[in-house]
Amino acid sequence: MNYQRILEDIFKEVDPGKIEGKVASYIPELAGVDPLKFGMCLTSFNGDRFFIGDHKTKFSIQSISKVLSLSMALGLVGEKIWERVGVEPSGNPFNSLVQLESEKGFPRNPLINAGAMVVADILVSNLKNPKQDFLNFVRDTAGTNDIQFNQKVAASEKATGYRNVALANFLKSFGRIENDPDRVLDFYFHQCSIEMSCEELANTFLLFTHHDKSNKIGLTVSQIKRVNAVMLSCGFYDESGEFAFKVGLPGKSGVGGGIAAVYPGQFSVAAWSPKLNEKGNSEAAMKALELLTNKTGKSIF
Amino acid sequence: MNYQRILEDIFKEVDPGKIEGKVASYIPELAGVDPLKFGMCLTSFNGDRFFIGDHKTKFSIQSISKVLSLSMALGLVGEKIWERVGVEPSGNPFNSLVQLESEKGFPRNPLINAGAMVVADILVSNLKNPKQDFLNFVRDTAGTNDIQFNQKVAASEKATGYRNVALANFLKSFGRIENDPDRVLDFYFHQCSIEMSCEELANTFLLFTHHDKSNKIGLTVSQIKRVNAVMLSCGFYDESGEFAFKVGLPGKSGVGGGIAAVYPGQFSVAAWSPKLNEKGNSEAAMKALELLTNKTGKSIF
Amino acid sequence: MNYQRILEDIFKEVDPGKIEGKVASYIPELAGVDPLKFGMCLTSFNGDRFFIGDHKTKFSIQSISKVLSLSMALGLVGEKIWERVGVEPSGNPFNSLVQLESEKGFPRNPLINAGAMVVADILVSNLKNPKQDFLNFVRDTAGTNDIQFNQKVAASEKATGYRNVALANFLKSFGRIENDPDRVLDFYFHQCSIEMSCEELANTFLLFTHHDKSNKIGLTVSQIKRVNAVMLSCGFYDESGEFAFKVGLPGKSGVGGGIAAVYPGQFSVAAWSPKLNEKGNSEAAMKALELLTNKTGKSIF
Amino acid sequence: MNYQRILEDIFKEVDPGKIEGKVASYIPELAGVDPLKFGMCLTSFNGDRFFIGDHKTKFSIQSISKVLSLSMALGLVGEKIWERVGVEPSGNPFNSLVQLESEKGFPRNPLINAGAMVVADILVSNLKNPKQDFLNFVRDTAGTNDIQFNQKVAASEKATGYRNVALANFLKSFGRIENDPDRVLDFYFHQCSIEMSCEELANTFLLFTHHDKSNKIGLTVSQIKRVNAVMLSCGFYDESGEFAFKVGLPGKSGVGGGIAAVYPGQFSVAAWSPKLNEKGNSEAAMKALELLTNKTGKSIF
Repeated sequence: MNYQRILEDIFKEVDPGKIEGKVASYIPELAGVDPLKFGMCLTSFNGDRFFIGDHKTKFSIQSISKVLSLSMALGLVGEKIWERVGVEPSGNPFNSLVQLESEKGFPRNPLINAGAMVVADILVSNLKNPKQDFLNFVRDTAGTNDIQFNQKVAASEKATGYRNVALANFLKSFGRIENDPDRVLDFYFHQCSIEMSCEELANTFLLFTHHDKSNKIGLTVSQIKRVNAVMLSCGFYDESGEFAFKVGLPGKSGVGGGIAAVYPGQFSVAAWSPKLNEKGNSEAAMKALELLTNKTGKSIF
Repeated sequence: MNYQRILEDIFKEVDPGKIEGKVASYIPELAGVDPLKFGMCLTSFNGDRFFIGDHKTKFSIQSISKVLSLSMALGLVGEKIWERVGVEPSGNPFNSLVQLESEKGFPRNPLINAGAMVVADILVSNLKNPKQDFLNFVRDTAGTNDIQFNQKVAASEKATGYRNVALANFLKSFGRIENDPDRVLDFYFHQCSIEMSCEELANTFLLFTHHDKSNKIGLTVSQIKRVNAVMLSCGFYDESGEFAFKVGLPGKSGVGGGIAAVYPGQFSVAAWSPKLNEKGNSEAAMKALELLTNKTGKSIF
Repeated sequence: MNYQRILEDIFKEVDPGKIEGKVASYIPELAGVDPLKFGMCLTSFNGDRFFIGDHKTKFSIQSISKVLSLSMALGLVGEKIWERVGVEPSGNPFNSLVQLESEKGFPRNPLINAGAMVVADILVSNLKNPKQDFLNFVRDTAGTNDIQFNQKVAASEKATGYRNVALANFLKSFGRIENDPDRVLDFYFHQCSIEMSCEELANTFLLFTHHDKSNKIGLTVSQIKRVNAVMLSCGFYDESGEFAFKVGLPGKSGVGGGIAAVYPGQFSVAAWSPKLNEKGNSEAAMKALELLTNKTGKSIF
Repeated sequence: MNYQRILEDIFKEVDPGKIEGKVASYIPELAGVDPLKFGMCLTSFNGDRFFIGDHKTKFSIQSISKVLSLSMALGLVGEKIWERVGVEPSGNPFNSLVQLESEKGFPRNPLINAGAMVVADILVSNLKNPKQDFLNFVRDTAGTNDIQFNQKVAASEKATGYRNVALANFLKSFGRIENDPDRVLDFYFHQCSIEMSCEELANTFLLFTHHDKSNKIGLTVSQIKRVNAVMLSCGFYDESGEFAFKVGLPGKSGVGGGIAAVYPGQFSVAAWSPKLNEKGNSEAAMKALELLTNKTGKSIF
């Protein structure tokens, strides 16, 4: 299949200038990103790379990091992780406290904020230098050392992230996190501040195609499948069904405008454009991935 | 792959006598079913059939019928159906009214009761003889005329289904169904009362593997994919994530103890055993399908 | 205290023409009421009557009937009634099903629709001719036989009251009502259709001032106090706090635009004007009662 | 009326040893209180005092302080306070975040934790030395300088009050508090740590009987009425209806086991005993107040 031509067709069809939506504005570092940026990179199972647009520009991966922290935690503690976080879609916004209250602080899945904080708590408990060790893990998966936390982003999140502070303390009040909420939040704000390009993200997500590299991080085939299942069910918050429906690939979005997705055994793909729809997912990246599966006929369904 | 031997291995491992759970008891017709029944049938894309146990015994397909009514409605009205029902997992029990109230009666998806009633309403509006026409549709998909409504089951559901009566009237109060609630309920109770065997169900579900027969009912490849996506996200109510996670196939369960699932391009499969876990899904059938994907390595993830 | 002059002052200050709000329009019989009607009647503990405006015009008492059915049921079954319905404000709209679902069908109080249906169920179980016996009870309390059901209103409610049908069936699904939901609904729609004037309502509500007449219906002083407490906490749905706050009297409103209230030991009062605020309470009647307690200084607080 | 004899009768009937319930145990300072303590003090409108048991023992007033902070804030900012907090019962537990989420952080009333934090925020913004000024206010109302914060209690609340930290940050995330959440929490934890005896509390609550002393703190008759209405509707969280129903007086409870209540124009009363029922209200104090209104016949209903 001529992926390069398909990507180029997508590039012509998706015009970020005509896409509706708003760049995330809750912190200045995100608000200042050029709304017309658009890039995409597809890495095939055998390692070929195809790309368009701003595929080398780094952006804030934000919630996409939740898949990476989940993977690292799975490698560290194994299936025990599921005693502390579920695998069900929440049917609620990503930062909702409602369900958490009625379910006594047990997060529905690791991809909503509450669940990602429980995963962060596991990493904080199990790593010597949690932030640095996690960063190294991400660098390993991407095959490059040129990946950093954006300290300004982390600081801004900390300064304004009252809702996340509320969530972490709420979890703690139910005994769902072991460490001090501030320590967990510090890790969490840092993991979300990591910056990567579409190319790096696509490379990292090869992990979830059952590529050999998943062995390196100690995940079994079965564990990879489960991460994919969780991405498909829960990767787009209360738009997860819509993404499964329209795109048909396991994937994860971030409020920085990025989306990474995989077709097991075939390819990984990342798309990025900053303008978000009202559910908080990049409108152009969603569109690009929908076109990709339409044009290639490749979806898991 | 030697599916027959795999099924036989599963048959040895899944002992309905040792499985926990309870047969559905809200109507006498279901309560009286032998709890030790267990059958399974797999139909490969090329038409080969493999089976074990009570694969020829008919049982009440109940909510599995929702996938069939959805398919028939999709064929009749096309994508317009999605203006009346969503594609998101609900994160709530199948018969919950809570979410429906806050979302003004718009059902999250066609596989919860509320959504299936909206689909039933569409069929009642678009078919000359709704019940008979639907029954004929199901017979066509299964390739046999030996399929009937169980009138006793339908009557019992009607006599005791206060919650469903509440749901239908609640939907009507929001203007979400066009016909009289009683008429929609009559159709709905009948569709759920249909009896099929694992063999017949597996045959019917070939539809969702992108088998040629899907053309016969007028569904496009894209529509089949969407039905599969909805099954994966929403087919097991608030255990949908768990099924995706453990089995990794689009599927649909019914309170009669049946589960039908598909691996697009490869096979359809149905399993049945009456004892239900507390989420209302057959414990033995869940186990059997989990073993199937473990042993074959075949899941969409 | 010169109540007549105070009422006349209120009459000058409350101009229904300038009051915002909308006449209830869900059934034609209510939608057709003249929005500029406004009447008020105060009956003092010693029997003196003071009135203004359309105090002799009959209107649909609607939910005000819930206090009367509660009183009759209390007289019939005594404190056992509280095993079937609570005394807590719901914090939710009058016809909400949300709380009912999480609390397994046990209604928070007898003045929301669900609670009133449980009370109706008690009356249907305990009266020979439920509707006629209840009508006679109301006539006795008002001291006149010139009180009727409005059969057209009852029929319209029945024809369009899907939400109430949903509620009754929902309650039945939890085993909270004994009789057939349709029978309970028939009673409920009739009780709400009763028509009374402000004068008649004020007369009836003398019951709740601890006037001698409460003996006639077999209620103890303690029971009267409890009805008053429930009215104060729950009589105005999710505007109950507002009414307690601004008016400071136990009372009950109806969607027909009526409000009846009492100052124990001193007076009962009824006001009526059809335009409703967005919570479903008569804006002019609320205003009139607020002025009454401001001008007289008489509130229970 | 011979209040002293009535209190003595109550003292005989209420045996804390036979009362069920548990002393609050979430912080060591409360957990260590003798569960058999029981005291009561009634102050009549003309200043006479009647008492039994441990009426001079100081205890942690906890949430009773919310009525005092509300009163002080009302005196400072007047009716504008109601733009920032409602007057409706919440129908939910005192520390619930659920309703707050759907209502965008606007607290239902000033007596649930969220509402009290908004009031605390107002005081922090309007007082020079918030904690000391508030303490002085409380001392003035009680007529004694022998009232202190318990710094150990405040520190323990701070160290373990994750749920309250969550609430304050949640409110801040909706822009409902002006100051830094930590500063508001520091004030809030201190106000709750104040220790008073039944005698002092009864003296303070004379304020709400429309006694002359309310002039001293600058509250109008109308404002006092409103505080009473809010206490009646919301003073006992989701047991407010029950208290109105059984006792029939405006009042406020605290998790330290205290309850203060008033009969406007007649008396104020405080009762204390540490064992709490499952709603978090003192079982013995509830019982004592129920007996008081039964024996005196004095309730506002």
